[in-house]
Amino acid sequence: MTDWNRMTLAGFQHRLADGELSPLDWWRACRERIDAMDPSLQAWECLAPEPSMAGRDGGQPSNALYGVPVGIKDIIDTARLPTTWGTQGYHHVDGSDMDAAIVTQLTRLGALPMGKTVSTEYAYFQPSRTRNPHDPARTPGGSSSGSAAAVAAGMVPVALGTQTVGSIIRPASYCGVVGFKPSHGTLSVAGVKALAPSLDTLGWFTRHMEDTRTLFTALTGSDPITPLERLEGVRVGLCLVPSTPLPSPDVTAALEGAATRMVELGAHLSPVDLGPTFDDLVTHQKVILAYEAARALASERARFEASMSPALIALLDEGQRLSLSRYWQSRQAADRATLALSQQFAERFDVLLAPSATGVALEGLESTGDPIYSRAWTLLGAPCVNLPLHWTPQGLPVGVQLIADHYQDQRLLSIASALMP
Amino acid sequence: MTDWNRMTLAGFQHRLADGELSPLDWWRACRERIDAMDPSLQAWECLAPEPSMAGRDGGQPSNALYGVPVGIKDIIDTARLPTTWGTQGYHHVDGSDMDAAIVTQLTRLGALPMGKTVSTEYAYFQPSRTRNPHDPARTPGGSSSGSAAAVAAGMVPVALGTQTVGSIIRPASYCGVVGFKPSHGTLSVAGVKALAPSLDTLGWFTRHMEDTRTLFTALTGSDPITPLERLEGVRVGLCLVPSTPLPSPDVTAALEGAATRMVELGAHLSPVDLGPTFDDLVTHQKVILAYEAARALASERARFEASMSPALIALLDEGQRLSLSRYWQSRQAADRATLALSQQFAERFDVLLAPSATGVALEGLESTGDPIYSRAWTLLGAPCVNLPLHWTPQGLPVGVQLIADHYQDQRLLSIASALMP
Repeated sequence: MTDWNRMTLAGFQHRLADGELSPLDWWRACRERIDAMDPSLQAWECLAPEPSMAGRDGGQPSNALYGVPVGIKDIIDTARLPTTWGTQGYHHVDGSDMDAAIVTQLTRLGALPMGKTVSTEYAYFQPSRTRNPHDPARTPGGSSSGSAAAVAAGMVPVALGTQTVGSIIRPASYCGVVGFKPSHGTLSVAGVKALAPSLDTLGWFTRHMEDTRTLFTALTGSDPITPLERLEGVRVGLCLVPSTPLPSPDVTAALEGAATRMVELGAHLSPVDLGPTFDDLVTHQKVILAYEAARALASERARFEASMSPALIALLDEGQRLSLSRYWQSRQAADRATLALSQQFAERFDVLLAPSATGVALEGLESTGDPIYSRAWTLLGAPCVNLPLHWTPQGLPVGVQLIADHYQDQRLLSIASALMP
Repeated sequence: MTDWNRMTLAGFQHRLADGELSPLDWWRACRERIDAMDPSLQAWECLAPEPSMAGRDGGQPSNALYGVPVGIKDIIDTARLPTTWGTQGYHHVDGSDMDAAIVTQLTRLGALPMGKTVSTEYAYFQPSRTRNPHDPARTPGGSSSGSAAAVAAGMVPVALGTQTVGSIIRPASYCGVVGFKPSHGTLSVAGVKALAPSLDTLGWFTRHMEDTRTLFTALTGSDPITPLERLEGVRVGLCLVPSTPLPSPDVTAALEGAATRMVELGAHLSPVDLGPTFDDLVTHQKVILAYEAARALASERARFEASMSPALIALLDEGQRLSLSRYWQSRQAADRATLALSQQFAERFDVLLAPSATGVALEGLESTGDPIYSRAWTLLGAPCVNLPLHWTPQGLPVGVQLIADHYQDQRLLSIASALMP
């Protein structure tokens, strides 16, 4: 009996090459699990029909994702599957005009779209119906709610997410999976519903760190990433967060565990206190989000305002009131901070170790949780990865986040691999 | 008899408020001119039916564009007009699913879409059928071919363009109109077909400098821009371009004329020689364009490759071959150059004065001309404006370009206004 939860993308290719498995086996196993679990978890907006492998190239080494089922967050356009953008107003049941660029890239690599995963409304804060696989009374986080939950529940080995505030890292922490946000601009967002383009970043969730390395190499044209086993010579900044909100004791325990392990592996650990800079970056991120969202969603508001949530309307109103000079002030501050952080990285750190969220997943589905600990890194365009390294006695996951300088994605994933071999 | 070519956007609002003109007068005058001229010029891909003014807000001061006919470049989505992206393969005759954000912003300000203007294929280099209004045997430039030609021919007072390489500044120079490319990221490109997102910039063409100021204020939430009459205290860098290709004597004459005028108005002029930096920036711009285009147009290639031009296929192939590290090397070089240029601007210049194109519009429609003098500024995200200040003895326009630091758009337009009162 195949243990699909332990299967890696590369392992599957080996099993296919050896003739032990067939190209549709993983897809069918995922579909069975979805049929069994999704009535309660509600991670999927829609499901694809069983694909035909006829006419697909198979077995070539370049097809790193051959036969791999993938969940597509429902703010990403698909020509053959409906799209709702997580909204009540928009239901493009016949599929979008075109596939988003990432969908074509994935299918060209052999991946099989499993369906569309539930997103919050326009990938902003209004929660959706998806439940946390580790406790159905809790939120999975958002906005990539369905993608994080689907991967956590073993319904699919890979799912796409996007992050404009904290929409990959936080749900990955709440759901106990690897969540990766590459450097801003690494993957094309053509065909992905824009919220705030200078922040919007496409990334993904996986169960295994190795799979995140495989995806990065396959999708970007990167050289293969060598996983580190030891961390000698690696400089880690333990990032102290602002005192409000204080991270929960669970988060502190997760951070301490990760820090201890990194030191055991040979890393040099030192504290970083961003101080008031952190609060400033949070403010600038909020200004940029509001200004850009009010403009990027102008047509959606004109057509679907009646069904928009009060939270979204408040964001768009706020953005509409902001002056260009206020927006540019925040953009320039972000430019300066990006530069300053780059210098800090060059001189002092390879990666920062920081909380992924303020605590375990919140109870109830009324909120997707506080994205405070992601705002600054998203603003700076830095690559971030959530590592599901800690579980509370109640069995709830608490992730930690590693952050590297812009364009240091490969180094980040190398280092992170030492913690999740 | 109203002289529509001398009419400014603000002047039209005054005439409307005084009851001298009706809201549809400009639209109808433009339509008459289009019907007379477009069979030979071929600037329009499609035309809108006469709009109804019922239900529109009128006369409010906030509606700065009330009744103003606007041309929409055909890579911009419109829900009520067909879209072709300038291609042979894609013909969305029923209109796109949604209006692009900029279309909603314009109509909310009272503007009336006149139709879609001809674009080169996916806004890259493959020429379209549009002719230059000053000499129908010549190209209008591209990729915003129809928008530049339509404004130059008086078929519309405003038309939207986009620039990824030199697609606003060069056609503006060839057609003798004001062409403005704001700082990268100023206007939302949601619903605009992506070519290379870190370069793609939405801007426009007008006949009058004042209209460009009006549009900027109305669309961005900027404070009103005060036009300068004199240039005392303004530091101008006369930007020497690389020796290959040498600008034509017409361009040199245009630059000398503009430089002389700026000095007469009190500006301090000094030479800037970017030297090999300029060539490096051109190379990096080409790498970023190819890498991003290959990814952004992945779905379009999968569906419409058979009808794509060899030039576009060559670009996409080149981008597909580029490694992530080569791409990031160029992105990082661009980041460093942006910073270095900012320092130069802060210490030495308010604006740079540079060629807009290598010469007058080329004869024939086989090429839209060389965008070499725009590549560096587009890469750096800098605001640029073409000023139609020079005409050859044969009656062909030759523009000059003013460039400011990123986020200095208002200052740029203030200074440019002194040259085009």
